Amino acid sequence: MVGGGQGAFIGAVHRIAARLDGEFTLVAGALSSTPERARESAAALGLDPARSYAGFEQMAAAEADRPDGIEAVAIVTPNHMHVPAAKAFLARGIHVICDKPLAATEEDADSLAEVVRVADALFILTHNYTGYPMIRQAREMVAAGALGPLRLVQVEYVQDWLTRPLEAEGSKQAEWRTDPARSGAGGAVGDIGTHAHNLACFVSGLEVEELAADLQSFGTGRRLDDNGHVMLRFRGGARGMLWCSQVAPGNENGLRLRLYGPAGGLEWHQEQPNHLWFTPEGGPTQRLTRGGPGAGPAAAVVSRTPSGHPEGYLEGFANLYTEAAAAIRGFAPGGPPAPGLLPGVEAGLSGMRFITACVRSSQANAAWVRL
Amino acid sequence: MVGGGQGAFIGAVHRIAARLDGEFTLVAGALSSTPERARESAAALGLDPARSYAGFEQMAAAEADRPDGIEAVAIVTPNHMHVPAAKAFLARGIHVICDKPLAATEEDADSLAEVVRVADALFILTHNYTGYPMIRQAREMVAAGALGPLRLVQVEYVQDWLTRPLEAEGSKQAEWRTDPARSGAGGAVGDIGTHAHNLACFVSGLEVEELAADLQSFGTGRRLDDNGHVMLRFRGGARGMLWCSQVAPGNENGLRLRLYGPAGGLEWHQEQPNHLWFTPEGGPTQRLTRGGPGAGPAAAVVSRTPSGHPEGYLEGFANLYTEAAAAIRGFAPGGPPAPGLLPGVEAGLSGMRFITACVRSSQANAAWVRL
Amino acid sequence: MVGGGQGAFIGAVHRIAARLDGEFTLVAGALSSTPERARESAAALGLDPARSYAGFEQMAAAEADRPDGIEAVAIVTPNHMHVPAAKAFLARGIHVICDKPLAATEEDADSLAEVVRVADALFILTHNYTGYPMIRQAREMVAAGALGPLRLVQVEYVQDWLTRPLEAEGSKQAEWRTDPARSGAGGAVGDIGTHAHNLACFVSGLEVEELAADLQSFGTGRRLDDNGHVMLRFRGGARGMLWCSQVAPGNENGLRLRLYGPAGGLEWHQEQPNHLWFTPEGGPTQRLTRGGPGAGPAAAVVSRTPSGHPEGYLEGFANLYTEAAAAIRGFAPGGPPAPGLLPGVEAGLSGMRFITACVRSSQANAAWVRL
Amino acid sequence: MVGGGQGAFIGAVHRIAARLDGEFTLVAGALSSTPERARESAAALGLDPARSYAGFEQMAAAEADRPDGIEAVAIVTPNHMHVPAAKAFLARGIHVICDKPLAATEEDADSLAEVVRVADALFILTHNYTGYPMIRQAREMVAAGALGPLRLVQVEYVQDWLTRPLEAEGSKQAEWRTDPARSGAGGAVGDIGTHAHNLACFVSGLEVEELAADLQSFGTGRRLDDNGHVMLRFRGGARGMLWCSQVAPGNENGLRLRLYGPAGGLEWHQEQPNHLWFTPEGGPTQRLTRGGPGAGPAAAVVSRTPSGHPEGYLEGFANLYTEAAAAIRGFAPGGPPAPGLLPGVEAGLSGMRFITACVRSSQANAAWVRL
Repeated sequence: MVGGGQGAFIGAVHRIAARLDGEFTLVAGALSSTPERARESAAALGLDPARSYAGFEQMAAAEADRPDGIEAVAIVTPNHMHVPAAKAFLARGIHVICDKPLAATEEDADSLAEVVRVADALFILTHNYTGYPMIRQAREMVAAGALGPLRLVQVEYVQDWLTRPLEAEGSKQAEWRTDPARSGAGGAVGDIGTHAHNLACFVSGLEVEELAADLQSFGTGRRLDDNGHVMLRFRGGARGMLWCSQVAPGNENGLRLRLYGPAGGLEWHQEQPNHLWFTPEGGPTQRLTRGGPGAGPAAAVVSRTPSGHPEGYLEGFANLYTEAAAAIRGFAPGGPPAPGLLPGVEAGLSGMRFITACVRSSQANAAWVRL
Repeated sequence: MVGGGQGAFIGAVHRIAARLDGEFTLVAGALSSTPERARESAAALGLDPARSYAGFEQMAAAEADRPDGIEAVAIVTPNHMHVPAAKAFLARGIHVICDKPLAATEEDADSLAEVVRVADALFILTHNYTGYPMIRQAREMVAAGALGPLRLVQVEYVQDWLTRPLEAEGSKQAEWRTDPARSGAGGAVGDIGTHAHNLACFVSGLEVEELAADLQSFGTGRRLDDNGHVMLRFRGGARGMLWCSQVAPGNENGLRLRLYGPAGGLEWHQEQPNHLWFTPEGGPTQRLTRGGPGAGPAAAVVSRTPSGHPEGYLEGFANLYTEAAAAIRGFAPGGPPAPGLLPGVEAGLSGMRFITACVRSSQANAAWVRL
Repeated sequence: MVGGGQGAFIGAVHRIAARLDGEFTLVAGALSSTPERARESAAALGLDPARSYAGFEQMAAAEADRPDGIEAVAIVTPNHMHVPAAKAFLARGIHVICDKPLAATEEDADSLAEVVRVADALFILTHNYTGYPMIRQAREMVAAGALGPLRLVQVEYVQDWLTRPLEAEGSKQAEWRTDPARSGAGGAVGDIGTHAHNLACFVSGLEVEELAADLQSFGTGRRLDDNGHVMLRFRGGARGMLWCSQVAPGNENGLRLRLYGPAGGLEWHQEQPNHLWFTPEGGPTQRLTRGGPGAGPAAAVVSRTPSGHPEGYLEGFANLYTEAAAAIRGFAPGGPPAPGLLPGVEAGLSGMRFITACVRSSQANAAWVRL
Repeated sequence: MVGGGQGAFIGAVHRIAARLDGEFTLVAGALSSTPERARESAAALGLDPARSYAGFEQMAAAEADRPDGIEAVAIVTPNHMHVPAAKAFLARGIHVICDKPLAATEEDADSLAEVVRVADALFILTHNYTGYPMIRQAREMVAAGALGPLRLVQVEYVQDWLTRPLEAEGSKQAEWRTDPARSGAGGAVGDIGTHAHNLACFVSGLEVEELAADLQSFGTGRRLDDNGHVMLRFRGGARGMLWCSQVAPGNENGLRLRLYGPAGGLEWHQEQPNHLWFTPEGGPTQRLTRGGPGAGPAAAVVSRTPSGHPEGYLEGFANLYTEAAAAIRGFAPGGPPAPGLLPGVEAGLSGMRFITACVRSSQANAAWVRL
């Protein structure tokens, strides 16, 4: 693991997700750019001190040399470190599981994509919300035509944790996420807007053709957007709106997706992820539940318990890791960069183009920008 | 009453609303432009046949001449008839309670506004959602600073009844609402978008400064928009989005309002109107209920029953009528066009400017249009 | 109207309900046992002072003598006055619409029943929750076998307004409702338990065969129960539980009904009355909405607006009044005591037997008592 | 692990829970009483074949002899095997983590309790619902007096999976759970009623003094109860009801707890476990969220992610395992049988007494039975 030392958030999530189905064991890490924190974090996790590295470069080199070296690495640093770290491991044939967004800049992202395309290892991006069973169910239903040709895709990802200027109050999380040097050009739009965009595309099977974005920064002294309004036009004629915000009190992690076509509608909310609301046109709304009647194999294969036993964020995240393990076992050099439903570098590039387009559109007074 | 004959929807609602608090008695009408339907409708409602008129012009003239003539008239026709009917009654000093939107065209609306400003009678527009107790509560809280200076206003009004092209299947409602000659330039945006716009402004106390709208018509052969995405910029710096749709299966009458400021957030849904969700920044979300703890006098004065006894659409509508009765009792010629919280011609003009701006913006590829 | 003067709650509800569909006009009353309050209340309601009476006896006599005397009377007094008042009007051929429960004592109830059976007038009891459209829908579905032979009926009616001893703090409502002389032997069980019992029987079509009740009085110094736990055995083999409480903070008017059979389940909550949740065995749960797909004519005939326009407590109450008006119009002496779905004296007797059985069972340490 | 071979449900849950925080590694098992299934299951889990045993007796003996023998064993068999298996391991100083209920009979349970009290090892019973963060939060609030002295405890655990007679359709789960020889005297009351009872006691801090139970068996040919209605009297004066059912269509795993006192109320639902609804008397209801404002350290120490990231069944289960690991690390012979908040043999005995009391009460026509 690169990143994820003490004080970080997403590193611990990756560790649990990797472990949940027993597919991965953490044996080495460059857990922090601060040597002392790296050491202490490694000790707390029970790593062999010899495999606690000062940086990803050393780690990649040393692990590649070991006969028992790591098969895969999880990269969970701030955004600007994703690309150099990923390149270091891919160059040595070590599979990479990387947090999103792909990079801090589109240039970095493109250069990584070139590396990925010729690498002898997999690159997997943890757009974790795609791992939720009822998201898989929704995707399957859309693909099977349950809604007819999609007309509307409404997605929002709404939080409240940056309502106050936490970055001025000592929050490490708030600091790097509002710092253009470490996060890139997008604030909320990069941090959570990309998730919303990714999820909308994953479930709908559509791609955004052009968008018009109005980004704002409400927090005092904040250098990146903390709220974004985006109108979407998808290839093929569907339309949509995307709202991302980190300044809306009462919203914790409000990722919500709604899709409509002439034959029906679907609605899903991340905070109640085991339910999917389906309305066939002309019929009553149905509450589909993970594992319950009406939910099919797409949800079942990523479920661990019967219906009524809530599975949540960690289980959804773990589904990506477990699918990554299967992909790694089945990997042959020259194979596809990310197999099956797993998001790979293409999803990452799509997310980067989304961020860039939002920022450019907003700078042009919400003019339409093609992706 | 003008309009509201058999087969109409909103006329019956007005009649119940007028009667609910015992403030109005229906005694005369020009209930339909079709003479036979007018006659039959009047008979069904128990009107004196002598006071069932062939048209609003005759009705206004005859009732003004009667010593026991009507004090007020409800106009519940399709949009294009609002203005001529209203003028006929106002000219004779008869108060007008008119359904929204104000008119089919902005020119009509402006000409009515001029009449209203010098009329010896009140003009009241039934933007009925402003009559809900918890909407009054929300408005009061925003005005009292419970959210701090508003940053975000998110509003949506989502239906599904036009998912199929009902106007081609013999639905009278669908026919006139999708007919530019009778509805005006806006379809969904005029029918329900105006409600959303009105409600957002009523509660927030803000005015839209400019907007960018992307309107669509998904129904086969449909002549007016049935879905609209709008980005909003309010005077003073708040931002928002408005979504209106009549083609989203699973949504019956989904009018939903959310407001956020640095000090808190509010959320309200028309289909569960007795609840208002309030989150003070840094505190847990509270469910405020009509009549319950935390709900103040603004809600109480428009409530009839204790908390837990759901009041709904008709009660909210009736609140406007009952306030109209009080206004009529207190009316003195030369008084204000619409007193207190009642929406009047200015609210109607604002709605017309909203519709026009949405249509113009959409025709200009969602360019910003100032209101 | 008898009762319902200033300071009362349910009288105002009856007046709105009577007026809502334009079927009744209030013209006379004995609104309070306190003469001054009676006079003032009558004046506030705009009654002819000559028809504001000092007591129900005078009112019945005088109105029966007038050529334009009342056709029907609403009795909305505390429980112990229901029977004498009803008898006075029935004796003169004036139809009676009476609040529940039927009486304060079973003896009173029985004596009224005898009168009703031979009266030349209708007796209707306002078990108002039976007027909700989705309750009618549920009844229809159960009768049609949508659940199969019922196995389980779970009902609860939970409030919190007596958590504190309001009767010692000057609340008129709390005073008479906790006073055995005016309320009868049941407190919560009489006030709201009867509603729960009535609703469970109305929807299920079943009768309680025996019950075991454990009643409590938690409020300091309270003389009647404020909480009751009841196990139910229905004729035919179904089983159930009933919980009524007025001391459960966070519950405003929480009347909730759930029914289950081998073929499916139904769930309804009074505070969201436009929804009915139906689960066919082996299928996903469906949200049936008033006026929406899957809701049939039983709900439609007692609805005034399309789906998505919430109708609530007053509309449900008004449905009984409007059905009463139809019954009165169709009444012929010697006819049935209460026609169609309207609750009459038999429902009232059933409620009285329920109260008595609960109290007797509880006094016998929750022994089973047959009804 | 003893039990948990292919086709079982709870074994897989225990394995994930044990692994989730990285505290346990599965190295040995007697996974099935059928040798072939035991072998295949062990192979599928990657166990060393030498440590896949034919029975718990061999396993206990062999593992106790190994220098690298197991520290703890998870027992996840049908109920009747819990006691002999637990005794075998405890006798050898191996810690036991055992699924609930404690045993199939009260005699078995008592004999185990005697062993536990003198054992040189811990005995932990996985009443897993006590591991949910918001249950810990609720317990803390009750203990701190947020509700005042408890008056009411309402608990229900409602499922629908046995609506049809699955035990006659080849379901292994349904077979043993409806078989008195393997499950004991209680069906639903033993399988899920014990969870409800345990949770009510855990959160309230109260003990049931006496109960009256009416158990039914609705499934055709079913030998154990599949539905139970129970009235509860707690020591100290609180009262309650418990409903458990496996035949209520539309309920998947509906464990729901409500508690009320003079100072407030609490409500929690297992299927939305990250929310806890708190109503202080006289104030609005608050939605407390795991990790959100108003949720304190009791919830935080058993949480892994920030608010808004749903944690569910597996995380709650894992909390017990992780606390068990801490207890095992801190164990000294002669120590308490189950430390801290972990349920141990006393909780198990309490559950057995609850089952027995329910069955005895029901056989005596719901007479009160003291625990």
